[in-house]
Amino acid sequence: MAVAGGKTCTVNGGSGVLSYSKNSNFQRNAIDAAKELINKAISENLDINIFPSSNTFKVADLGCATGPNTFLAVQNIIDAVETKYQSQGNTSQVPEFQVFFNDHAGNDFNHLFISLPPERRYFATGVPGSFHDRLFPRASLHFAHSSYSVQILSRVPKEVEDKNSPAWNKGRIQYSNSTVEVVEAYQAQYAKDMESFLKARAEEIVSGGLMAFIVPGRPDGSSHSEAFVNKASELLGSCLMDMANKGKILSEKVDSLNFPMYNASPQEVEAAVKRNGCFRIEMMEIVPQEMPQPKAFCSTMRAGAGTTLKQHFGEEIDLDELFDLLHKKFEEKFFYVFESGNAISLFVLLKRVGTE
Amino acid sequence: MAVAGGKTCTVNGGSGVLSYSKNSNFQRNAIDAAKELINKAISENLDINIFPSSNTFKVADLGCATGPNTFLAVQNIIDAVETKYQSQGNTSQVPEFQVFFNDHAGNDFNHLFISLPPERRYFATGVPGSFHDRLFPRASLHFAHSSYSVQILSRVPKEVEDKNSPAWNKGRIQYSNSTVEVVEAYQAQYAKDMESFLKARAEEIVSGGLMAFIVPGRPDGSSHSEAFVNKASELLGSCLMDMANKGKILSEKVDSLNFPMYNASPQEVEAAVKRNGCFRIEMMEIVPQEMPQPKAFCSTMRAGAGTTLKQHFGEEIDLDELFDLLHKKFEEKFFYVFESGNAISLFVLLKRVGTE
Repeated sequence: MAVAGGKTCTVNGGSGVLSYSKNSNFQRNAIDAAKELINKAISENLDINIFPSSNTFKVADLGCATGPNTFLAVQNIIDAVETKYQSQGNTSQVPEFQVFFNDHAGNDFNHLFISLPPERRYFATGVPGSFHDRLFPRASLHFAHSSYSVQILSRVPKEVEDKNSPAWNKGRIQYSNSTVEVVEAYQAQYAKDMESFLKARAEEIVSGGLMAFIVPGRPDGSSHSEAFVNKASELLGSCLMDMANKGKILSEKVDSLNFPMYNASPQEVEAAVKRNGCFRIEMMEIVPQEMPQPKAFCSTMRAGAGTTLKQHFGEEIDLDELFDLLHKKFEEKFFYVFESGNAISLFVLLKRVGTE
Repeated sequence: MAVAGGKTCTVNGGSGVLSYSKNSNFQRNAIDAAKELINKAISENLDINIFPSSNTFKVADLGCATGPNTFLAVQNIIDAVETKYQSQGNTSQVPEFQVFFNDHAGNDFNHLFISLPPERRYFATGVPGSFHDRLFPRASLHFAHSSYSVQILSRVPKEVEDKNSPAWNKGRIQYSNSTVEVVEAYQAQYAKDMESFLKARAEEIVSGGLMAFIVPGRPDGSSHSEAFVNKASELLGSCLMDMANKGKILSEKVDSLNFPMYNASPQEVEAAVKRNGCFRIEMMEIVPQEMPQPKAFCSTMRAGAGTTLKQHFGEEIDLDELFDLLHKKFEEKFFYVFESGNAISLFVLLKRVGTE
């Protein structure tokens, strides 16, 4: 799913030079960084004895986009589960795996399906739909995973799009550098979305099953503007305003564009999990984000947001110009964007507790 | 999946005027005709007491293409299962449904996913891959369904493509009007493919679970050339030869094109099921095929075979000309193609018996 995106937040499909599949090394770093944490999560927190009646271990990747990152993430999970079985001498009982790749119905599943690794040791399925709704039958998943997707909201908060609201977000595409009303509207939407996300997963994940997600985050006590994804989006917003000021796009169109994503702190995640009440937090780790190259990060943002920007501004917007502008700003301010200590991801491991 | 098609047999995607989704009324008739048979199959042959530990009823549609027919077929199954539960007073125990839409990885799943009925009462998933291989975990399906797909072979028999073989199928795209060597090569491929198809399903379908499929067929004792799909394909082959004779396409290209499908008789289906040994035939019905309009049937064949023909002959082949030619031949010979008594489909219901 997109690093930044619009209402449906589907990434650029296919395998062209501007595609997500060719411009998602940044997100891949998060998966690589999480690999050891996934190993630890499964090694220490997965009780394989709780699945005696099932001979299929079911894994979902929520917000999988078009590959290849999702294939790496899924393979890491399967390797770790197999290792766990082997470490307990259960080699003969290693289950079959069924993997559910989920994203919005508008995602390029065709590209995902033709890119599936031929040597995979699992049965692959695609699941179209929003992870803020139910996607799977009751108690049918053993491990849900999501990388760089749970920060994406189900929608832009209504009031930030409403000219007559005190939370109208004029001249910005982002909450982080905006008024307190805008920030509160985003916080409320995040809380609501986490509620529906966790409620749906609580129904779908078996008792004792695990959910791991990694999201761009911000340290407890830091301001919203300090989070690196927010800084990057703020710069993109300022490039759009530059283009509006030159008459190349309508400033009203910038006013009405808002990215539906929210980068939470560990405390906010904890609060959401506590409110839901069906999961226990087994791990919560701060993962430093490796600094990418400015040019590559521009391409990543374009692969994530390009479709949304075209939909919003119309085909006439010159995305080459926009991302050239962004690249220049990145060159000037990249150490500011990826400031040490604030460029972090959050890795969260939850265990489904109790019964339905 | 295609009525007639080439090596991968994916139908025309999308929703344009030439798409499968807009040109599959012919196949829809088979689903409509099978509706009462599906009701009967589930009412009389599904033992809901054999699934006590599962709260999800899992349905697969094998060779689903791009919709909308697959949605109708699946809804018929779910309606019938719900009716069965209700008729036994088990209204409180009606399970959740998970539906697996399967076709080749090259199928237009994007179109399928955005076309899913919004009011559906099931969790939808897509499964890319050939149904001649394993697609699902062991004992994970309760009802497998397939409409107008099982007649499609996994490949064209090697020898009919080999110039040095006595089974080389020069000047034809079809086995039915060919030599005994060609017919035998197709029969052998059909037997092999049914073996792999039934072997895979025997592993995937729970004991007591059902599989229903409907295919274009031919009555016991009839010749291959009498089957209506074969007649239609023979006419398409003769149109290609007409174009080759006029120098519009290369005759060598016609020699090397062979449609990978085989229309079996009830006896041949019975023999395949018996060889496999894991299923019992609960129903085997001959369903008369309603005669379509010649023009509409041309469009159906184009939606099914168009992609294959372009791949085989190159973009330069004029498909408008080809299907205009076919339309003319249909206008002359349509009563011959849809001759009463030979224009039939076979409806087959199998029950998984014994254990794995």
